[in-house]
Amino acid sequence: MNLILLHPDDFIGEGEVRLTGRRADHVREVHRAVPGEALRVGLLNGKTGIGVVRNSDGTDLTLSVSLSADPPAPVLVTLLLAMPRPKVFRRVIQCATSLGIKRIALFGAFRVEKSYWKSPWLALDELRNQMILGLEQACDTVLPEVTLHPHFKPFVEDVIPLLTEGTRRLVAHPGQGGVCPSAIPSPVSLAIGPEGGFTDYEIERLVGAGFESVTLGVRILRTEQAVPALLGRLLAV
Amino acid sequence: MNLILLHPDDFIGEGEVRLTGRRADHVREVHRAVPGEALRVGLLNGKTGIGVVRNSDGTDLTLSVSLSADPPAPVLVTLLLAMPRPKVFRRVIQCATSLGIKRIALFGAFRVEKSYWKSPWLALDELRNQMILGLEQACDTVLPEVTLHPHFKPFVEDVIPLLTEGTRRLVAHPGQGGVCPSAIPSPVSLAIGPEGGFTDYEIERLVGAGFESVTLGVRILRTEQAVPALLGRLLAV
Repeated sequence: MNLILLHPDDFIGEGEVRLTGRRADHVREVHRAVPGEALRVGLLNGKTGIGVVRNSDGTDLTLSVSLSADPPAPVLVTLLLAMPRPKVFRRVIQCATSLGIKRIALFGAFRVEKSYWKSPWLALDELRNQMILGLEQACDTVLPEVTLHPHFKPFVEDVIPLLTEGTRRLVAHPGQGGVCPSAIPSPVSLAIGPEGGFTDYEIERLVGAGFESVTLGVRILRTEQAVPALLGRLLAV
Repeated sequence: MNLILLHPDDFIGEGEVRLTGRRADHVREVHRAVPGEALRVGLLNGKTGIGVVRNSDGTDLTLSVSLSADPPAPVLVTLLLAMPRPKVFRRVIQCATSLGIKRIALFGAFRVEKSYWKSPWLALDELRNQMILGLEQACDTVLPEVTLHPHFKPFVEDVIPLLTEGTRRLVAHPGQGGVCPSAIPSPVSLAIGPEGGFTDYEIERLVGAGFESVTLGVRILRTEQAVPALLGRLLAV
């Protein structure tokens, strides 16, 4: 937790917040913060700044906060990700959030098991919790927008054209296509397939929708490695 | 397991191998391979090729193998990584291996807890097992060389000059230095600090040793995200 993310209902007065639970425990146990100490804070979907510990008695923790800086600039990559296994889903969502991605579309594909869509991690609260962990790590405040598209055909036909309009469209496919470009300053859409890869039909449909097939080489990466490897490469910073 | 990694003592005759344990179970349960089926195989530190299932009775599994292709070209990045927490160590080693890194130096720094060096994952067998999982994922065969340097001062003074000779030296530091370059075709050394970051002294010493301070932006990434994000960016493919 490199930034303590504040919610509107944490405020108990003008510039005064009270924290309880996980965040209060973290400030006490990890930061070992005592009254007078300054910590990095940010308002969810708002500005960042400094919070000075006022009181740390009992279970409550109060801070005087001053919020004046903008959060880091959003990364102009729309991530189109084949729905990962529940086990890796949380890590991937946290990772994409920490890297500054603000639009994530999770979609179904031939090699995405239907059961993945029943994962309890997809519940709105859980998804939001994972993104908050990613923001706290990266010192960002702005939640990504996540959309779910269990069926590939309507996703590629109806959703993708609008979602990726005005962006350079890339689909990552190990060992196929050109070398993945890097440090792209303009908006990009990046599609990453499931474990086991896209089918030929899926690649055809994506190419038909304007996607360039790109690769990081012949090595096959796990989803949780491919997402940061490709996003880190594309960042214009 | 996208490639079944063979060891010299798996061979029971010319071009014939017998698998037991984890690999045999995987071939049966995940690949659901039956006699006659062809699977991707590779010899540890050697060539890659095809193995045809001959017999899958009982606990043993025999394959006829033909090994003629070179493994993927090594990635010319020497990774200098502040020793991570045991919990993330395994994932990071697997990840760097899957990305094709062949030289990894783990080093101590002010914010590396001394207890990390006592992790059971550092035992030679365990380390090797993690790298094998990374190779099997990426369809590579060549184990990285890993060296351990618990003390920062002798590492930066005595080891780094030789280890990084003839390479472009980069040290990643969130929010400081120039934008991290990308797709570098020549040898690179990349230093990544501990959670909590390098101290000013450590950065000074690395800059003194010829390292350029580079950044992926102001967002702070977890080690397991920073490693693939930076390596994916540097890959020349």
